[in-house]
Amino acid sequence: MNAVDFMTREVVVLRYGHRIVRDERVTSHVCLVARAFGAKKIIVAGDEDKSTKESVQDIVKRWGGNFKVEFSESWKKTMKSYQKKGFKAVHATMYGLELNKAETKLKKINKILLVIGSQKVEKEVYQLADYNISVGLQPHSEIAALAVVLDRLFEGKELEKKFKGKVRIEPQAKGKKVIKN
Amino acid sequence: MNAVDFMTREVVVLRYGHRIVRDERVTSHVCLVARAFGAKKIIVAGDEDKSTKESVQDIVKRWGGNFKVEFSESWKKTMKSYQKKGFKAVHATMYGLELNKAETKLKKINKILLVIGSQKVEKEVYQLADYNISVGLQPHSEIAALAVVLDRLFEGKELEKKFKGKVRIEPQAKGKKVIKN
Repeated sequence: MNAVDFMTREVVVLRYGHRIVRDERVTSHVCLVARAFGAKKIIVAGDEDKSTKESVQDIVKRWGGNFKVEFSESWKKTMKSYQKKGFKAVHATMYGLELNKAETKLKKINKILLVIGSQKVEKEVYQLADYNISVGLQPHSEIAALAVVLDRLFEGKELEKKFKGKVRIEPQAKGKKVIKN
Repeated sequence: MNAVDFMTREVVVLRYGHRIVRDERVTSHVCLVARAFGAKKIIVAGDEDKSTKESVQDIVKRWGGNFKVEFSESWKKTMKSYQKKGFKAVHATMYGLELNKAETKLKKINKILLVIGSQKVEKEVYQLADYNISVGLQPHSEIAALAVVLDRLFEGKELEKKFKGKVRIEPQAKGKKVIKN
């Protein structure tokens, strides 16, 4: 994959399910992973939660980039409207087709709505998704699944993305070095 | 990497920090990711938490494998004792050397103690670690960092590991299929 492919591939994450308080920390992780691993936007289909949104926006302000957080009252409307706009809905689930086998096909898609579930996902999500993809056939974490799918899609190049924020990190063998831009 | 390398490489995860209630869900994700992505054991250095331990053990019983969960009162003692046993301590942190550059070197290590932090990690962790590795120089999630490091170390083969549990999943294009063994 060359730099042009990385710039032109568009990934929007749809987080299926969010409950205020109970899911705040996991949803925050999902949002930050989406941003750090090259997605352009996350849409959270669940309780509208200003505090989670603001904490992610604070990170964007400080660390840079154009990452957006939105809420949706209906995952189904969001999925269908993105599909109409030419996105393929890729649902990460432990029950789907194996990532190692599906990867080549996924990389040919330019616009992906990456659907990340929570505890319990309705049957209809599986039906409406264009692809149901499993990141291992074992129970683990939607945060991990999201990171690995994005890392595979972008072939690791997403970790080298420049964000142009107020601060940046200079990698260190020992300790921390944060630089003000 | 061939099958022998995958079988002989030993990864133990050290989770730095755990607080009962507050961290239960994130630590559970960390444990399940460690298991699903090919680590042999996790050691949680923090509050001893029977409920988290039992819920992970229940998953192991049902889904298979020999994954172990232990607690430690001191991350430092654990790190030093593993280093004495020939393990290299690899600490995943947003401040460390970039994974894309360090990956080749990491793959040459046969015994890895993979240290995964929480909110705030003491300076001494950086000093005692043999390698401090960053999975992107942006704030995100220790769960994501763990998954991506393991996926890179095992070159994706960990997702094809057979666990031999009471149940297994047969991958489906649509829907779910769980088979009793």
